[in-house]
Amino acid sequence: MPPQPFTTIAWDDGVVLLDQTKLPDEEVYLRVTTVEDLVAAIQRLSIRGAPAIGVAGGYGVALAARQFPPDRDRTAFLAAVATIRAARPTAVNLALRVDEVLSDVEAGSGPAAEEALKAANDIRAAELASSVGMGERGYYAVLDLCDGGPVTAMTICNTGGLASVERGTALAVIQTLHERGQLAEALALETRPLLQGARLTAWELQRMGAPFRLLVDSAGPFLLHQQMADVVLIGADRIAANGDTANKIGSFALALGARAAGIPFIVVAPESTVDLDTASGPEIEIEDRGVGEVVSVHGMRIAPDDAGAVNPAFDVTPAELISVIVTDRRVVHVHRGEAIDRVSALDPADIE
Amino acid sequence: MPPQPFTTIAWDDGVVLLDQTKLPDEEVYLRVTTVEDLVAAIQRLSIRGAPAIGVAGGYGVALAARQFPPDRDRTAFLAAVATIRAARPTAVNLALRVDEVLSDVEAGSGPAAEEALKAANDIRAAELASSVGMGERGYYAVLDLCDGGPVTAMTICNTGGLASVERGTALAVIQTLHERGQLAEALALETRPLLQGARLTAWELQRMGAPFRLLVDSAGPFLLHQQMADVVLIGADRIAANGDTANKIGSFALALGARAAGIPFIVVAPESTVDLDTASGPEIEIEDRGVGEVVSVHGMRIAPDDAGAVNPAFDVTPAELISVIVTDRRVVHVHRGEAIDRVSALDPADIE
Repeated sequence: MPPQPFTTIAWDDGVVLLDQTKLPDEEVYLRVTTVEDLVAAIQRLSIRGAPAIGVAGGYGVALAARQFPPDRDRTAFLAAVATIRAARPTAVNLALRVDEVLSDVEAGSGPAAEEALKAANDIRAAELASSVGMGERGYYAVLDLCDGGPVTAMTICNTGGLASVERGTALAVIQTLHERGQLAEALALETRPLLQGARLTAWELQRMGAPFRLLVDSAGPFLLHQQMADVVLIGADRIAANGDTANKIGSFALALGARAAGIPFIVVAPESTVDLDTASGPEIEIEDRGVGEVVSVHGMRIAPDDAGAVNPAFDVTPAELISVIVTDRRVVHVHRGEAIDRVSALDPADIE
Repeated sequence: MPPQPFTTIAWDDGVVLLDQTKLPDEEVYLRVTTVEDLVAAIQRLSIRGAPAIGVAGGYGVALAARQFPPDRDRTAFLAAVATIRAARPTAVNLALRVDEVLSDVEAGSGPAAEEALKAANDIRAAELASSVGMGERGYYAVLDLCDGGPVTAMTICNTGGLASVERGTALAVIQTLHERGQLAEALALETRPLLQGARLTAWELQRMGAPFRLLVDSAGPFLLHQQMADVVLIGADRIAANGDTANKIGSFALALGARAAGIPFIVVAPESTVDLDTASGPEIEIEDRGVGEVVSVHGMRIAPDDAGAVNPAFDVTPAELISVIVTDRRVVHVHRGEAIDRVSALDPADIE
């Protein structure tokens, strides 16, 4: 199947969003032209993933400047910006990017809406360049660790363009492998409880025209043991100073399986994910997301009433189970004893 | 909550079945009085699990003898028995038990229906005794390996009375621990793709009045790493001569997690599961159950159209990851180098 590229978020006389609440059943693009509609789109998760939400926030400042020109009513403009900034309180990147664009607007000499749009477009371009860089470095890291391709790559959750601007992190590496004829097959874990793998990663792989199959999460470690994959590629929520990596629940089990099978295990994440203030994994608090997600699937109850659940949102993979960490600036060979807090940026050409 | 015992299958002027297609939402007992209805109940999985289906087959011969008394029309009787025997062609235990009861009927001097009922009741009693024996041996094995209780036990799939006559295998051990005040909590994996853990094991644990929580399968290995359980208990589809054990997909990942965390991993299965003709795990062919179960949950589609899937029905856990194998006749301390093909039956009193 030929690739059918998609655009998660862009500006075209308003914020144009791929409505992720409709995926994988329908591909619906929304053109959002008011601050109210953008806040609503962010809150109902039509757009999700830290980089994408950050870009949405940036474009939101441009919408606010158009709707409430600050040279006419600065108070109304700032109030509108504040509602965007607070649309998802836990999304740190949203507030960060809104503040960045706002400060560019204040510092700029042109009309506010134009300054905001320019700053937001720059953020979008930087996110895309970051994905391209991770794809590039990850591509060489995979071929290096696997002694060449084509490779079968196993992955979990959704780490692609839908969570980012276009290409993403771990899935950007898989996409780069595919584009260069080095992907034999992607094996995507469905990723209970929220099924991001089955819903979103499968959809993205189809759009890439990449060969893939889905599997239930518990099959991942065993299929590694059966040597059905050559490499595991995952994203990261947070990387501690010693390399311990927090990511979607199920990543740790894959790391155990990869280690038992002698298969390389690669973490791909932007540099902003590295948290040098966290010394190691045990310092990372594991959020429990409650019973609801476990006892139901897409709102359909699967367990008896009153059944309790333990529902860790993510797990922590110890650095000793990680082969390599790839960021948008460097490649850290953890398996060779390199530490994330002591390795500086590398040029892709140095990697081979 | 006080225990509320249930009966999977029994005879009361017909075959009385707990209709498992209605669980966990409704507890409906069916009284089946014709061969046709019994075959239909077996085929729509109202009754499931090798021991339970075997008992159903035995009672089916009694139904056949009542409906088509062989002293009047032996051909009709044997034809009816043949339809029961073939109700689920892959269920070896069904044919085995039907033949057993039929041969007792032929050998007996009393009326056919009475002889059949007596033989089927004996099979039911033997299955129950087997479960009680596994529970007893498993109880001591757990307390031995965990240096006493109460313990938190993790388990996968449904290995309880619903798959058996009343108590089952791994879940029989958890039930015995609970009855004797030695169960702190059971942690039950939901067990994708068919969710036997979320639907059936959760229901059984509620009926036992046992404290429990559900988890998504991929959380199991990580929660073991976090020392949230003291022991893992699983059933078995087949145990090779060297102790390698085929069981529900996900068992291998739990075994890796248990090993990494230093937590005992116990297999509980009837002696009939031991297959000395299979030397080791790699000889066991892994059945792929196809795409449908992975891309949907309870008939609701969760993945894009045309998405493929790899769907191994079970995995194989190497003997070196197994601490102990408990059967209805013995306890094999695999972790002490004992081999299943060289250890004879032990009395429960010898185990401690």
